[in-house]
Amino acid sequence: MPLIAVDVIRGHDETHLTTLLDGIHDAVVEALAVPDTDRYQILTQHEPLEIRALDTGLGYTRSQNLTIIRVISKARPEAAKQRLYALIAQNLHARLGIGGDDIIISIAENTDADWSFGGGRAQFLTGDLPNTPDESTK
Amino acid sequence: MPLIAVDVIRGHDETHLTTLLDGIHDAVVEALAVPDTDRYQILTQHEPLEIRALDTGLGYTRSQNLTIIRVISKARPEAAKQRLYALIAQNLHARLGIGGDDIIISIAENTDADWSFGGGRAQFLTGDLPNTPDESTK
Amino acid sequence: MPLIAVDVIRGHDETHLTTLLDGIHDAVVEALAVPDTDRYQILTQHEPLEIRALDTGLGYTRSQNLTIIRVISKARPEAAKQRLYALIAQNLHARLGIGGDDIIISIAENTDADWSFGGGRAQFLTGDLPNTPDESTK
Repeated sequence: MPLIAVDVIRGHDETHLTTLLDGIHDAVVEALAVPDTDRYQILTQHEPLEIRALDTGLGYTRSQNLTIIRVISKARPEAAKQRLYALIAQNLHARLGIGGDDIIISIAENTDADWSFGGGRAQFLTGDLPNTPDESTK
Repeated sequence: MPLIAVDVIRGHDETHLTTLLDGIHDAVVEALAVPDTDRYQILTQHEPLEIRALDTGLGYTRSQNLTIIRVISKARPEAAKQRLYALIAQNLHARLGIGGDDIIISIAENTDADWSFGGGRAQFLTGDLPNTPDESTK
Repeated sequence: MPLIAVDVIRGHDETHLTTLLDGIHDAVVEALAVPDTDRYQILTQHEPLEIRALDTGLGYTRSQNLTIIRVISKARPEAAKQRLYALIAQNLHARLGIGGDDIIISIAENTDADWSFGGGRAQFLTGDLPNTPDESTK
Protein backbone atom coordinates (compact mmCIF):
# COMPACT_ATOMS: atom_id res chain seq x y z
CA MET A 1 0.00 0.00 0.00
CA PRO A 2 -0.37 2.18 -1.89
CA LEU A 3 -1.21 0.22 -5.02
CA ILE A 4 -0.22 2.13 -8.12
CA ALA A 5 -1.39 1.62 -11.70
CA VAL A 6 0.83 3.28 -14.30
CA ASP A 7 -0.33 3.64 -17.91
CA VAL A 8 2.11 4.66 -20.66
CA ILE A 9 2.34 4.61 -24.43
CA ARG A 10 4.20 1.59 -25.84
CA GLY A 11 7.67 2.20 -27.28
CA HIS A 12 10.00 2.55 -24.29
CA ASP A 13 12.63 -0.08 -23.55
CA GLU A 14 12.91 -2.13 -20.37
CA THR A 15 15.52 0.13 -18.81
CA HIS A 16 13.28 3.15 -19.30
CA LEU A 17 10.28 1.38 -17.82
CA THR A 18 12.23 0.10 -14.84
CA THR A 19 13.63 3.57 -14.17
CA LEU A 20 10.13 4.98 -14.46
CA LEU A 21 8.67 2.57 -11.92
CA ASP A 22 11.65 3.09 -9.60
CA GLY A 23 11.27 6.86 -9.78
CA ILE A 24 7.60 6.67 -8.89
CA HIS A 25 8.29 4.26 -6.06
CA ASP A 26 11.05 6.40 -4.56
CA ALA A 27 8.66 9.36 -4.55
CA VAL A 28 6.03 7.26 -2.76
CA VAL A 29 8.49 6.13 -0.09
CA GLU A 30 9.65 9.67 0.62
CA ALA A 31 6.35 11.54 0.36
CA LEU A 32 4.14 9.01 2.14
CA ALA A 33 6.82 7.82 4.60
CA VAL A 34 6.27 4.14 3.86
CA PRO A 35 8.94 1.41 3.98
CA ASP A 36 10.85 0.62 0.80
CA THR A 37 9.17 -2.81 0.72
CA ASP A 38 5.78 -1.13 0.45
CA ARG A 39 5.82 -1.44 -3.32
CA TYR A 40 2.85 -2.51 -5.42
CA GLN A 41 2.91 -1.36 -9.04
CA ILE A 42 1.03 -2.42 -12.17
CA LEU A 43 2.23 -1.03 -15.50
CA THR A 44 0.16 -1.22 -18.67
CA GLN A 45 1.53 -0.22 -22.08
CA HIS A 46 -0.88 1.16 -24.68
CA GLU A 47 -1.09 1.87 -28.36
CA PRO A 48 -1.20 5.65 -28.98
CA LEU A 49 -4.86 5.53 -29.98
CA GLU A 50 -5.76 4.03 -26.60
CA ILE A 51 -4.77 7.09 -24.59
CA ARG A 52 -6.45 10.50 -24.83
CA ALA A 53 -5.14 13.19 -22.54
CA LEU A 54 -5.89 16.86 -23.05
CA ASP A 55 -5.11 19.54 -20.45
CA THR A 56 -8.28 21.18 -19.03
CA GLY A 57 -6.94 24.44 -20.45
CA LEU A 58 -3.86 24.41 -18.24
CA GLY A 59 -1.43 24.71 -21.15
CA TYR A 60 0.25 21.31 -20.93
CA THR A 61 1.42 19.58 -24.10
CA ARG A 62 1.37 15.79 -23.83
CA SER A 63 4.01 13.71 -25.65
CA GLN A 64 4.90 10.05 -26.16
CA ASN A 65 6.26 10.18 -22.59
CA LEU A 66 2.78 10.65 -21.17
CA THR A 67 2.49 8.84 -17.86
CA ILE A 68 -0.86 8.43 -16.14
CA ILE A 69 -0.58 7.32 -12.52
CA ARG A 70 -3.56 6.07 -10.53
CA VAL A 71 -2.96 5.57 -6.81
CA ILE A 72 -5.12 3.61 -4.36
CA SER A 73 -4.13 4.42 -0.77
CA LYS A 74 -5.38 4.79 2.73
CA ALA A 75 -6.10 8.42 3.68
CA ARG A 76 -3.12 10.76 3.40
CA PRO A 77 -2.78 14.43 4.40
CA GLU A 78 -3.02 17.00 1.62
CA ALA A 79 0.59 18.02 2.18
CA ALA A 80 1.78 14.44 1.63
CA LYS A 81 -0.19 14.23 -1.61
CA GLN A 82 1.27 17.49 -2.87
CA ARG A 83 4.75 16.29 -1.92
CA LEU A 84 4.07 13.06 -3.81
CA TYR A 85 3.08 14.91 -6.98
CA ALA A 86 6.15 17.15 -6.80
CA LEU A 87 8.57 14.29 -6.13
CA ILE A 88 7.23 12.11 -8.93
CA ALA A 89 7.67 14.99 -11.37
CA GLN A 90 11.13 15.73 -9.99
CA ASN A 91 12.32 12.11 -10.14
CA LEU A 92 10.99 11.42 -13.64
CA HIS A 93 12.54 14.61 -14.97
CA ALA A 94 15.92 14.04 -13.33
CA ARG A 95 16.19 10.37 -14.30
CA LEU A 96 14.40 10.17 -17.65
CA GLY A 97 13.97 13.73 -18.87
CA ILE A 98 10.20 13.37 -18.69
CA GLY A 99 8.66 16.82 -18.40
CA GLY A 100 5.95 17.83 -15.98
CA ASP A 101 3.65 18.24 -18.97
CA ASP A 102 3.53 14.46 -19.27
CA ILE A 103 2.59 13.45 -15.74
CA ILE A 104 -1.02 13.01 -14.65
CA ILE A 105 -1.82 11.63 -11.19
CA SER A 106 -5.11 10.68 -9.52
CA ILE A 107 -5.59 9.26 -6.01
CA ALA A 108 -8.49 7.22 -4.63
CA GLU A 109 -8.61 6.56 -0.90
CA ASN A 110 -9.80 3.52 1.01
CA THR A 111 -9.51 2.23 4.59
CA ASP A 112 -7.77 -0.32 6.80
CA ALA A 113 -10.31 -3.03 6.04
CA ASP A 114 -9.76 -2.72 2.31
CA TRP A 115 -6.34 -4.35 2.07
CA SER A 116 -5.03 -7.90 1.98
CA PHE A 117 -1.34 -8.24 1.15
CA GLY A 118 -1.24 -12.04 1.22
CA GLY A 119 -2.51 -15.15 2.92
CA GLY A 120 -6.14 -14.09 2.66
CA ARG A 121 -5.66 -11.86 5.73
CA ALA A 122 -6.56 -8.18 6.29
CA GLN A 123 -3.24 -7.15 7.79
CA PHE A 124 -4.32 -3.73 9.01
CA LEU A 125 -7.16 -5.34 10.97
CA THR A 126 -5.30 -8.37 12.31
CA GLY A 127 -2.42 -6.31 13.65
CA ASP A 128 0.11 -7.82 11.25
CA LEU A 129 0.59 -4.22 10.12
CA PRO A 130 0.09 -1.16 12.32
CA ASN A 131 -2.25 1.64 11.35
CA THR A 132 -0.13 4.22 9.65
CA PRO A 133 0.51 7.47 11.54
CA ASP A 134 -0.91 9.31 8.53
CA GLU A 135 -4.30 7.86 9.33
CA SER A 136 -4.58 10.05 12.43
CA THR A 137 -4.23 13.23 10.38
CA LYS A 138 -7.42 12.68 8.44
CA MET B 1 -10.92 15.09 -14.59
CA PRO B 2 -12.75 12.84 -14.70
CA LEU B 3 -10.29 10.09 -15.60
CA ILE B 4 -12.00 7.30 -17.49
CA ALA B 5 -10.84 3.73 -18.05
CA VAL B 6 -12.61 1.94 -20.88
CA ASP B 7 -12.28 -1.83 -21.32
CA VAL B 8 -13.49 -3.54 -24.50
CA ILE B 9 -13.06 -6.83 -26.33
CA ARG B 10 -10.38 -6.75 -29.04
CA GLY B 11 -11.59 -6.81 -32.64
CA HIS B 12 -12.79 -3.29 -33.40
CA ASP B 13 -10.92 -1.05 -35.86
CA GLU B 14 -9.39 2.33 -35.09
CA THR B 15 -12.34 4.28 -36.40
CA HIS B 16 -14.71 2.37 -34.14
CA LEU B 17 -12.49 2.88 -31.10
CA THR B 18 -12.04 6.58 -31.79
CA THR B 19 -15.78 7.03 -32.21
CA LEU B 20 -16.32 5.10 -28.97
CA LEU B 21 -13.96 7.32 -26.97
CA ASP B 22 -15.41 10.46 -28.57
CA GLY B 23 -18.96 9.38 -27.73
CA ILE B 24 -18.06 8.78 -24.10
CA HIS B 25 -16.22 12.08 -23.89
CA ASP B 26 -19.08 14.08 -25.38
CA ALA B 27 -21.40 12.56 -22.78
CA VAL B 28 -19.00 13.56 -20.00
CA VAL B 29 -18.76 17.14 -21.25
CA GLU B 30 -22.53 17.51 -21.42
CA ALA B 31 -23.57 15.61 -18.28
CA LEU B 32 -20.84 16.87 -15.96
CA ALA B 33 -20.57 20.36 -17.48
CA VAL B 34 -16.80 20.20 -17.89
CA PRO B 35 -14.78 21.91 -20.64
CA ASP B 36 -14.07 19.96 -23.82
CA THR B 37 -10.37 19.91 -22.89
CA ASP B 38 -11.20 18.00 -19.71
CA ARG B 39 -10.46 14.71 -21.40
CA TYR B 40 -8.52 11.87 -19.80
CA GLN B 41 -9.22 8.41 -21.22
CA ILE B 42 -7.40 5.08 -21.03
CA LEU B 43 -8.63 2.29 -23.32
CA THR B 44 -7.61 -1.34 -22.82
CA GLN B 45 -8.48 -4.05 -25.36
CA HIS B 46 -8.98 -7.60 -24.10
CA GLU B 47 -9.18 -11.15 -25.37
CA PRO B 48 -12.73 -12.49 -24.94
CA LEU B 49 -11.67 -14.80 -22.12
CA GLU B 50 -10.42 -11.83 -20.11
CA ILE B 51 -13.84 -10.25 -19.67
CA ARG B 52 -16.72 -11.81 -17.75
CA ALA B 53 -19.89 -9.80 -17.52
CA LEU B 54 -23.22 -11.28 -16.50
CA ASP B 55 -26.28 -9.17 -15.66
CA THR B 56 -27.34 -9.45 -11.99
CA GLY B 57 -30.61 -10.87 -13.27
CA LEU B 58 -31.52 -7.67 -15.10
CA GLY B 59 -32.03 -9.38 -18.44
CA TYR B 60 -29.15 -7.85 -20.38
CA THR B 61 -27.37 -9.89 -23.05
CA ARG B 62 -23.73 -8.90 -23.47
CA SER B 63 -22.08 -9.09 -26.90
CA GLN B 64 -18.69 -8.46 -28.51
CA ASN B 65 -19.53 -4.75 -28.18
CA LEU B 66 -19.38 -4.93 -24.39
CA THR B 67 -17.95 -1.70 -23.00
CA ILE B 68 -16.99 -1.40 -19.35
CA ILE B 69 -16.42 2.19 -18.24
CA ARG B 70 -14.76 3.05 -14.92
CA VAL B 71 -14.87 6.72 -13.97
CA ILE B 72 -12.77 8.47 -11.30
CA SER B 73 -14.21 11.91 -10.54
CA LYS B 74 -14.68 14.49 -7.87
CA ALA B 75 -18.14 14.33 -6.27
CA ARG B 76 -21.05 14.77 -8.68
CA PRO B 77 -24.79 15.07 -7.99
CA GLU B 78 -26.91 11.97 -8.57
CA ALA B 79 -28.76 13.68 -11.37
CA ALA B 80 -25.50 14.38 -13.22
CA LYS B 81 -24.47 10.73 -12.88
CA GLN B 82 -27.81 9.53 -14.20
CA ARG B 83 -27.54 11.99 -17.09
CA LEU B 84 -24.03 10.67 -17.80
CA TYR B 85 -25.23 7.06 -17.98
CA ALA B 86 -28.11 7.97 -20.29
CA LEU B 87 -25.97 10.11 -22.60
CA ILE B 88 -23.22 7.51 -22.93
CA ALA B 89 -25.82 4.92 -23.91
CA GLN B 90 -27.48 7.36 -26.30
CA ASN B 91 -24.22 8.41 -27.99
CA LEU B 92 -22.85 4.89 -28.41
CA HIS B 93 -26.12 3.67 -29.85
CA ALA B 94 -26.52 6.57 -32.25
CA ARG B 95 -22.92 6.55 -33.47
CA LEU B 96 -21.94 2.87 -33.34
CA GLY B 97 -25.14 0.91 -32.92
CA ILE B 98 -23.97 -0.34 -29.53
CA GLY B 99 -26.98 -1.37 -27.51
CA GLY B 100 -27.64 -0.46 -23.91
CA ASP B 101 -27.17 -4.14 -23.07
CA ASP B 102 -23.45 -3.69 -23.67
CA ILE B 103 -22.68 -0.69 -21.48
CA ILE B 104 -21.57 -1.05 -17.87
CA ILE B 105 -20.47 2.02 -15.89
CA SER B 106 -19.00 2.42 -12.41
CA ILE B 107 -17.93 5.66 -10.71
CA ALA B 108 -15.47 6.18 -7.85
CA GLU B 109 -15.24 9.62 -6.25
CA ASN B 110 -12.26 11.47 -4.87
CA THR B 111 -11.51 15.05 -3.80
CA ASP B 112 -9.69 18.24 -4.81
CA ALA B 113 -6.40 17.10 -3.26
CA ASP B 114 -6.40 13.90 -5.31
CA TRP B 115 -5.56 15.35 -8.72
CA SER B 116 -2.41 16.51 -10.46
CA PHE B 117 -2.80 17.28 -14.17
CA GLY B 118 0.85 18.14 -14.80
CA GLY B 119 3.93 19.80 -13.43
CA GLY B 120 3.75 17.93 -10.14
CA ARG B 121 1.13 20.40 -8.92
CA ALA B 122 -2.29 19.83 -7.31
CA GLN B 123 -4.19 22.28 -9.48
CA PHE B 124 -7.43 22.26 -7.46
CA LEU B 125 -5.46 23.22 -4.36
CA THR B 126 -3.11 25.76 -5.91
CA GLY B 127 -5.88 27.70 -7.60
CA ASP B 128 -4.71 26.82 -11.10
CA LEU B 129 -8.17 25.27 -11.44
CA PRO B 130 -11.28 26.47 -9.60
CA ASN B 131 -13.36 24.10 -7.50
CA THR B 132 -16.14 22.88 -9.70
CA PRO B 133 -19.65 24.19 -8.96
CA ASP B 134 -20.74 20.54 -8.69
CA GLU B 135 -18.66 20.23 -5.54
CA SER B 136 -21.06 22.45 -3.61
CA THR B 137 -23.99 20.13 -4.30
CA LYS B 138 -22.49 17.23 -2.39
CA MET C 1 -21.37 -5.29 -8.67
CA PRO C 2 -18.78 -5.65 -7.46
CA LEU C 3 -16.56 -4.95 -10.45
CA ILE C 4 -13.26 -6.77 -10.18
CA ALA C 5 -10.00 -6.09 -12.00
CA VAL C 6 -7.53 -8.97 -11.90
CA ASP C 7 -3.91 -8.47 -12.96
CA VAL C 8 -1.61 -11.46 -13.50
CA ILE C 9 1.68 -12.28 -15.19
CA ARG C 10 1.32 -13.68 -18.70
CA GLY C 11 2.08 -17.39 -19.18
CA HIS C 12 -0.96 -19.23 -17.87
CA ASP C 13 -3.26 -21.14 -20.23
CA GLU C 14 -6.95 -20.52 -20.76
CA THR C 15 -8.03 -23.25 -18.38
CA HIS C 16 -5.92 -21.78 -15.61
CA LEU C 17 -7.26 -18.27 -16.21
CA THR C 18 -10.86 -19.46 -16.33
CA THR C 19 -10.41 -21.39 -13.10
CA LEU C 20 -8.80 -18.33 -11.54
CA LEU C 21 -11.70 -16.05 -12.46
CA ASP C 22 -14.23 -18.68 -11.35
CA GLY C 23 -12.49 -19.09 -8.00
CA ILE C 24 -12.54 -15.37 -7.35
CA HIS C 25 -16.17 -15.11 -8.39
CA ASP C 26 -17.27 -17.99 -6.17
CA ALA C 27 -15.60 -16.26 -3.23
CA VAL C 28 -17.43 -13.02 -4.04
CA VAL C 29 -20.81 -14.76 -4.22
CA GLU C 30 -20.30 -16.48 -0.87
CA ALA C 31 -18.59 -13.69 1.09
CA LEU C 32 -20.69 -10.79 -0.16
CA ALA C 33 -23.94 -12.75 -0.50
CA VAL C 34 -24.62 -11.61 -4.04
CA PRO C 35 -26.39 -13.62 -6.76
CA ASP C 36 -24.29 -15.80 -9.04
CA THR C 37 -25.18 -13.52 -11.95
CA ASP C 38 -23.53 -10.58 -10.17
CA ARG C 39 -20.30 -11.16 -12.07
CA TYR C 40 -18.19 -8.38 -13.56
CA GLN C 41 -14.51 -9.24 -14.06
CA ILE C 42 -11.73 -7.69 -16.13
CA LEU C 43 -8.48 -9.66 -16.43
CA THR C 44 -5.25 -8.09 -17.69
CA GLN C 45 -2.13 -10.16 -18.42
CA HIS C 46 1.26 -8.51 -18.00
CA GLU C 47 4.89 -9.02 -18.90
CA PRO C 48 6.94 -9.77 -15.76
CA LEU C 49 8.61 -6.35 -15.86
CA GLU C 50 5.21 -4.65 -15.66
CA ILE C 51 4.40 -5.92 -12.19
CA ARG C 52 6.32 -5.01 -9.04
CA ALA C 53 5.07 -6.46 -5.79
CA LEU C 54 7.12 -6.55 -2.62
CA ASP C 55 5.68 -7.43 0.78
CA THR C 56 5.75 -4.49 3.24
CA GLY C 57 8.01 -6.65 5.40
CA LEU C 58 5.33 -9.27 5.93
CA GLY C 59 7.50 -12.14 4.70
CA TYR C 60 5.60 -13.05 1.55
CA THR C 61 7.49 -14.33 -1.50
CA ARG C 62 5.77 -13.48 -4.77
CA SER C 63 5.97 -15.90 -7.73
CA GLN C 64 4.79 -16.11 -11.35
CA ASN C 65 1.37 -16.90 -9.86
CA LEU C 66 1.06 -13.39 -8.43
CA THR C 67 -2.56 -12.24 -8.61
CA ILE C 68 -3.49 -8.65 -7.86
CA ILE C 69 -7.22 -8.14 -7.35
CA ARG C 70 -8.83 -4.69 -7.28
CA VAL C 71 -12.48 -4.61 -6.22
CA ILE C 72 -14.94 -1.75 -6.68
CA SER C 73 -18.03 -2.32 -4.54
CA LYS C 74 -20.75 -0.62 -2.58
CA ALA C 75 -19.99 -0.52 1.17
CA ARG C 76 -19.48 -3.90 2.81
CA PRO C 77 -19.02 -4.82 6.48
CA GLU C 78 -15.48 -5.54 7.65
CA ALA C 79 -16.38 -9.14 8.37
CA ALA C 80 -17.56 -9.66 4.78
CA LYS C 81 -14.32 -8.21 3.44
CA GLN C 82 -12.25 -10.48 5.67
CA ARG C 83 -14.33 -13.44 4.58
CA LEU C 84 -13.77 -12.44 0.95
CA TYR C 85 -9.99 -12.35 1.38
CA ALA C 86 -9.96 -15.73 3.10
CA LEU C 87 -12.24 -17.40 0.55
CA ILE C 88 -10.30 -16.10 -2.45
CA ALA C 89 -7.09 -17.48 -0.95
CA GLN C 90 -8.80 -20.75 -0.13
CA ASN C 91 -10.35 -21.22 -3.57
CA LEU C 92 -7.20 -20.34 -5.53
CA HIS C 93 -5.11 -22.68 -3.41
CA ALA C 94 -7.54 -25.56 -3.63
CA ARG C 95 -8.21 -25.25 -7.35
CA LEU C 96 -4.88 -24.01 -8.75
CA GLY C 97 -2.31 -24.49 -6.01
CA ILE C 98 -1.76 -20.74 -5.81
CA GLY C 99 -0.32 -19.90 -2.41
CA GLY C 100 -1.47 -17.10 -0.15
CA ASP C 101 1.88 -15.42 -0.79
CA ASP C 102 0.68 -14.60 -4.30
CA ILE C 103 -2.65 -12.94 -3.59
CA ILE C 104 -2.98 -9.18 -3.09
CA ILE C 105 -6.43 -7.60 -2.77
CA SER C 106 -7.56 -3.97 -2.53
CA ILE C 107 -11.14 -2.68 -2.25
CA ALA C 108 -12.53 0.75 -3.14
CA GLU C 109 -16.08 1.58 -2.15
CA ASN C 110 -18.70 3.63 -3.92
CA THR C 111 -22.47 4.16 -3.59
CA ASP C 112 -25.84 3.34 -5.14
CA ALA C 113 -25.66 6.23 -7.60
CA ASP C 114 -22.33 5.04 -8.97
CA TRP C 115 -23.52 2.02 -10.94
CA SER C 116 -25.13 1.46 -14.31
CA PHE C 117 -25.35 -2.17 -15.42
CA GLY C 118 -26.93 -1.50 -18.80
CA GLY C 119 -29.39 0.62 -20.72
CA GLY C 120 -27.92 3.88 -19.44
CA ARG C 121 -29.88 3.45 -16.21
CA ALA C 122 -28.74 3.67 -12.56
CA GLN C 123 -30.43 0.48 -11.40
CA PHE C 124 -29.93 1.03 -7.67
CA LEU C 125 -31.67 4.40 -7.95
CA THR C 126 -34.46 3.42 -10.32
CA GLY C 127 -35.52 0.43 -8.24
CA ASP C 128 -34.53 -2.08 -10.91
CA LEU C 129 -32.20 -3.44 -8.22
CA PRO C 130 -32.88 -3.23 -4.47
CA ASN C 131 -30.38 -1.69 -2.10
CA THR C 132 -28.32 -4.54 -0.74
CA PRO C 133 -28.89 -5.49 2.90
CA ASP C 134 -25.13 -4.97 3.43
CA GLU C 135 -25.66 -1.27 2.86
CA SER C 136 -27.51 -0.95 6.18
CA THR C 137 -24.48 -2.18 8.12
CA LYS C 138 -22.30 0.73 7.12
